[in-house]
Amino acid sequence: MSTEPLFSRTRQGSVGSLGEGALIARIRRWLGEASPVSPKGIGDDCAVLAPARGRELLTVDPVIAGIHFDRRVSAGQVGGKLFKRNLSDIAAMGGRPRAAVVALALDSRVSLRWLAEFYRGLARESLRYRVPVVGGDVARLPGSFVATLALAGEAPGRVMTRKGARPGDWIYVTGLLGRSLQSGHHHRFAPRLAEGAWLARQAGVRAMMDLSDGLAKDLAELTPKGCEAALFAKMLPCRAGASTREALSDGEDYELVLAFRGGREKDSLERAWKRAFPRIPLTCVGRFVRRGDLPAGLLNLKEYRGYEHLR
Amino acid sequence: MSTEPLFSRTRQGSVGSLGEGALIARIRRWLGEASPVSPKGIGDDCAVLAPARGRELLTVDPVIAGIHFDRRVSAGQVGGKLFKRNLSDIAAMGGRPRAAVVALALDSRVSLRWLAEFYRGLARESLRYRVPVVGGDVARLPGSFVATLALAGEAPGRVMTRKGARPGDWIYVTGLLGRSLQSGHHHRFAPRLAEGAWLARQAGVRAMMDLSDGLAKDLAELTPKGCEAALFAKMLPCRAGASTREALSDGEDYELVLAFRGGREKDSLERAWKRAFPRIPLTCVGRFVRRGDLPAGLLNLKEYRGYEHLR
Repeated sequence: MSTEPLFSRTRQGSVGSLGEGALIARIRRWLGEASPVSPKGIGDDCAVLAPARGRELLTVDPVIAGIHFDRRVSAGQVGGKLFKRNLSDIAAMGGRPRAAVVALALDSRVSLRWLAEFYRGLARESLRYRVPVVGGDVARLPGSFVATLALAGEAPGRVMTRKGARPGDWIYVTGLLGRSLQSGHHHRFAPRLAEGAWLARQAGVRAMMDLSDGLAKDLAELTPKGCEAALFAKMLPCRAGASTREALSDGEDYELVLAFRGGREKDSLERAWKRAFPRIPLTCVGRFVRRGDLPAGLLNLKEYRGYEHLR
Repeated sequence: MSTEPLFSRTRQGSVGSLGEGALIARIRRWLGEASPVSPKGIGDDCAVLAPARGRELLTVDPVIAGIHFDRRVSAGQVGGKLFKRNLSDIAAMGGRPRAAVVALALDSRVSLRWLAEFYRGLARESLRYRVPVVGGDVARLPGSFVATLALAGEAPGRVMTRKGARPGDWIYVTGLLGRSLQSGHHHRFAPRLAEGAWLARQAGVRAMMDLSDGLAKDLAELTPKGCEAALFAKMLPCRAGASTREALSDGEDYELVLAFRGGREKDSLERAWKRAFPRIPLTCVGRFVRRGDLPAGLLNLKEYRGYEHLR
């Protein structure tokens, strides 16, 4: 893991030693094959993309120094995390990512070595998921570093939204929950793109989203009106060492949570999943029930909070 | 003009007094009709758009406190400027804007009244240009304010790029140049969307871009290899009170500069422009000539600099 600091102690080592033109030339070099030639890539007023297949998806998410990363995370991991946070949003809709643009706002003392690593981290994920970085912007932000990535995607088939769950639907989550920060999962995770696209093709899946602020908080978005989520604590797929509270309240799981039509198709969904994704857990953690019908002995989600952004 | 300060002196008046959910609810209210219902708008992991007509355009640009605005600019003007800066990039390609997402990174002391005005300014331009705000993100940035807007567009016809000018091509600019900051043009300007789309339909227009860093700097992007720009100082359409130096070097003109096929079609372009846009100047400011062929008495662009972002 790198310990390259965000700010350089020397002027030569910092972004401010270059002009904008020279910095953009470096960025293109750092991105390498992840950066196509303009007008399909960096270098014109906009990037030009071929028409999408089906409906289009658009999302945006930043990484901010001191909020989304600190010194324990290398610059390359920060770049990778920025890309994957946005990929996870596309995955949540069952879509396919197409192209990214990156707006940098940074202090002129930011280290060129740190920034090179950051872009190489972006480029790694760009190449892995075949999503080119097609443009961006560079601007000065005294005292800090914010990188904002906007991602365009497409949904050739069904678009999964947060709306559509009904009373009696099963609640499933992919992967493991909790202790994302402590375990390094928050930058090491793989966005559930193939899984999300597969789930969107299963007719019984009625609603889906990704988990970024903890199941206890995010699940409210999926819960049908007049319902509540009946969750069994022992069903929760906790990450190694994670308590029930951590599995419910920790942020940055970047897993999918979905509502599946109640009834007997449950077994066939689970069997088909195991064939498609043998190494990734898909866990039924509970069910949506009408308010007041909550069986005794279940988790009371009101006792748990998710990640709160602005406090 | 508002004098509402960016930071609130009281906790109740600041963003930090709300949670993320409550803030997003306010943002939707401030945006009003500019914000469609999810999944076409705010409230899901991605926004979902209908398929584009033709090729797609993607661009991103921020506004940053202390860099792109200060206390002399009202919050509503900042919001409008953010939207229009991005619209200008779509105009430069001859495209049509479709939908925007806005990522906010802000200190929890940012004033709610300031932010309300900011979003109402965004909403005004959104409604004026019929480009909905379909999503975004809110995150904490200690000590500052950065709003990053990503804009998706489409190009039903020809996409204009910066490449394509040839020796002998005329150089045209729309509108007036210089003193954008002093005159308030930097937030009052109208992005040249109709003009850009019209120019893209004229076969003789070979290359186009928008002016953000001053003609002296930006024109290098349009200049064909082995050529230089022969500009006549007295041809420059200077804004009231602007010197030649200011017309060439000041940033944020947000006008279009384009290369037009040399020859006799010049007159018919100018006549057609006057019929289409009678109130907006289109000025021939010079010509691309082979290096070494620069006639005496012309401007030497090497003596002028444009806006430099990172110094």
